[in-house]
Amino acid sequence: MDIDSTAQDKARFFAGAWGRVKALPGKLKAKVTSTAKSIKKLGQDDPRRLTHSLKVGLALTLVSLLYYARPIYDGFGVSGMWAVLTVVVVFEFTVGGTLSKSLNRGFATFLAGALGLGADYFASLFGKNGEPIVLGILVFLLAAAATFSRFFPRIKARYDYGVLIFILTFSLVAVSGYRVNELVVLAHQRLSTIIMGGATCMLISIFVCPVWAGEDLHKAIASNLEKLATYLEGFGGVYFQSSESDGMGTGKSFPQGYKSILNSKSSEESLANFARWEPGHGRFRLRHPWKHYLKIGALARQCAYQIEAINGCIGSDHIQGSEEFKGKIEGSCTRMSAECGKTLKALAASMKTMTDPYSSANTHVENSKAAMKDLKFALKAASLENADLAAILPAATVGSILVEIVKCVEKISEAVHELSQLAHFEKETVEPTVSPEKPPQLLHRGIIQPVLDGDSTANDNVVITIHEIISTDSPENGKACDQHQVPKPGKKIEAL
Amino acid sequence: MDIDSTAQDKARFFAGAWGRVKALPGKLKAKVTSTAKSIKKLGQDDPRRLTHSLKVGLALTLVSLLYYARPIYDGFGVSGMWAVLTVVVVFEFTVGGTLSKSLNRGFATFLAGALGLGADYFASLFGKNGEPIVLGILVFLLAAAATFSRFFPRIKARYDYGVLIFILTFSLVAVSGYRVNELVVLAHQRLSTIIMGGATCMLISIFVCPVWAGEDLHKAIASNLEKLATYLEGFGGVYFQSSESDGMGTGKSFPQGYKSILNSKSSEESLANFARWEPGHGRFRLRHPWKHYLKIGALARQCAYQIEAINGCIGSDHIQGSEEFKGKIEGSCTRMSAECGKTLKALAASMKTMTDPYSSANTHVENSKAAMKDLKFALKAASLENADLAAILPAATVGSILVEIVKCVEKISEAVHELSQLAHFEKETVEPTVSPEKPPQLLHRGIIQPVLDGDSTANDNVVITIHEIISTDSPENGKACDQHQVPKPGKKIEAL
Repeated sequence: MDIDSTAQDKARFFAGAWGRVKALPGKLKAKVTSTAKSIKKLGQDDPRRLTHSLKVGLALTLVSLLYYARPIYDGFGVSGMWAVLTVVVVFEFTVGGTLSKSLNRGFATFLAGALGLGADYFASLFGKNGEPIVLGILVFLLAAAATFSRFFPRIKARYDYGVLIFILTFSLVAVSGYRVNELVVLAHQRLSTIIMGGATCMLISIFVCPVWAGEDLHKAIASNLEKLATYLEGFGGVYFQSSESDGMGTGKSFPQGYKSILNSKSSEESLANFARWEPGHGRFRLRHPWKHYLKIGALARQCAYQIEAINGCIGSDHIQGSEEFKGKIEGSCTRMSAECGKTLKALAASMKTMTDPYSSANTHVENSKAAMKDLKFALKAASLENADLAAILPAATVGSILVEIVKCVEKISEAVHELSQLAHFEKETVEPTVSPEKPPQLLHRGIIQPVLDGDSTANDNVVITIHEIISTDSPENGKACDQHQVPKPGKKIEAL
Repeated sequence: MDIDSTAQDKARFFAGAWGRVKALPGKLKAKVTSTAKSIKKLGQDDPRRLTHSLKVGLALTLVSLLYYARPIYDGFGVSGMWAVLTVVVVFEFTVGGTLSKSLNRGFATFLAGALGLGADYFASLFGKNGEPIVLGILVFLLAAAATFSRFFPRIKARYDYGVLIFILTFSLVAVSGYRVNELVVLAHQRLSTIIMGGATCMLISIFVCPVWAGEDLHKAIASNLEKLATYLEGFGGVYFQSSESDGMGTGKSFPQGYKSILNSKSSEESLANFARWEPGHGRFRLRHPWKHYLKIGALARQCAYQIEAINGCIGSDHIQGSEEFKGKIEGSCTRMSAECGKTLKALAASMKTMTDPYSSANTHVENSKAAMKDLKFALKAASLENADLAAILPAATVGSILVEIVKCVEKISEAVHELSQLAHFEKETVEPTVSPEKPPQLLHRGIIQPVLDGDSTANDNVVITIHEIISTDSPENGKACDQHQVPKPGKKIEAL
């Protein structure tokens, strides 16, 4: 019995093991397939990743072969490896990153090398016994001070790598134990190989399929505005229609793209930092106002926070809201969010084409302000005698947050306008026609009378005319409001 | 005349230059003073920065002196400098960071060294002329593949530095041009000096005033909850009282500490990443659920977004809101935010002491839910016949967002409770007394009758008793509601 059970155990063990071995190729195959898929996806998401990898390989091969080629190798001695080391450590995804690291490394090595030589000379004055002690104290003090300086936010942002290399080179030179005249030769070799490595990286990153941090930042900010626009343009339709059909907005059909904006701060800041190291490229000049992009980015985040709050309200809209009340504010709310969306779309488009966004965006800003007024009138007109306040609250909150979004979008519009002036965007070719979206309606109504008020002299532009026309046209979309005055352009937003 | 004017110009130039030179010491002094002040502030904000700098200095001096001391130096050859290099590059602020980099560096060097030797041997088979070509191709392929792998989020998060060192070492070994038997000696020297440097860093960072990433993460999450609590506890008082006295809440006197939470994601993620490399320390065991902290952090950010939306509404509260309506919801809103604040305070305190937060926090969660019900009743009871909806909207929106915050705080409470179970927090010593904050009120009312309902058998705990008492007590604070039922513990939140 005992033997039997042992034999059975053994048989079972081997059967199990064999099963596992048989299953192994299948599992391995599945694993390989999934890895291959994720590699493919990674490359497809951003093909520049593949290019970057090949560029690093190219730079390294070039420098390695130089190192391997005997004549040069003999000239530089062991220092040749510093070229390889430099390429590996310095080559970053963006041109700005590579330049920042290369220049930091070059200058820090030069400075620390000179200081290290001085320290060596100074320590040698203290004789054979005093030398290590003096050098030890110097290394300690300098390393501690330099490490502490890395906590300064400004140094951290721009010169962190330089300080690291400074500590490294100083320690290496100071304690290398060579004589000063030997060290000068060594330092020269090391510096020239580092420059060789750095220059290879810089040239390849600038001239072979360059990835400019500045351009990336520019595109990222524009695409963030577009994500907000996509949400806002679709919002009215989804929120008000879904609630009419099934009584609740589950928030499922809203585009969630804006969520990536919530945590975009750090990536935007690092891109802006790198962008400042880049030379002029394409449509961007050397002193492009990169810092200003961070301001627009912060405002876009502000807007995303408001959208997140709206999304929270919609998601929790469990109880049947008052459809009657919703219907009353539907027109103005839908128009507010749609016009905000159009403003952002126009701003994003003007950033992409680098043209002044003034006329196209301002029209929509004015429209959204008019819609905000409509909402106010709709709220005033809404009879609440038999309505339950708790039932109308969700929709009212959505309206209230939309008002905040309108204000936020106006700020974004101002910021993009500032950017267009700072960065000398091209002036838009003024088309003295009405907004291209709805000429037929205007023709039908026959009230196109460009009213020029006092303010228009300051902005002597046909744009003003367009504002007035669109504004005159606006009550058509807002169902609840017929009798209020046409808002004048340039008027301050009145809080709801 | 000409000569005169030239002389005058010269005199003016020199006077100006002298003025600038005289002003220089003053400017320099001011500059030095301001720099000294910012250094002092940097140190005072977090004294561990100073300690860290001294630790780096110490590690570097130790390794440098080892390198300087001739007997060891002669043993290791030029490779001794790798120890210095390792210390500079590997020493990070937190223990986790240092361990992650040291281990990455050690293993990557070992693996890449072995592979490099293999590559050298393989290339040597192709003869003198084929060798550089084969080596070049190998370096290119490996560098490109390894660089591409750095784009994988999982590799980026944990092994980024390791991959970098892998590329570096492989290239250096493969193209060094030494024979294989020379290389083995060199690799051995290099690896042992790297281990020496890494070990020095690890020992100093663990045993000299260690800064644990895990502890930092734990504290950061608890302090974020506290910041939210500070805002919410003070909110009701500031919002409703300021609007009563001067007609508008300018949002100026609200604590703005919560704003730092909005962008805390990246720092929390890097701390959690480092924490996983750390051994057990203090109250944290080896497999502490660090990932779970990120969940709580995300919920805290969600709550901060809602507060940001409230802050926006308050800031734009230009028009005189309906004071009558505000007065009606003041009681329940104040209590909602205060109880949310107390919940978060209790959760933060329980995290700090690492005790199970169940009883203390749950009491306040139940209270805030009761206040939410009160708000609903207050809204139902509010007569709106002669009220302007536009005037009550700001206050109503604040109420509506507070409801979202209550829900968010409940989720945070659940997440901290989960954490307390995963991390085996100590059970609270159950005190069968009522909540310590307001025993006098309870004594005055004389209705302390612990009602045990059916559910209480599941949670056989005196805690339940406390809930009931507090819940019974709750309408006292909500002015608008007297007749509604006492909410039972464990009931699901009913959406407003």
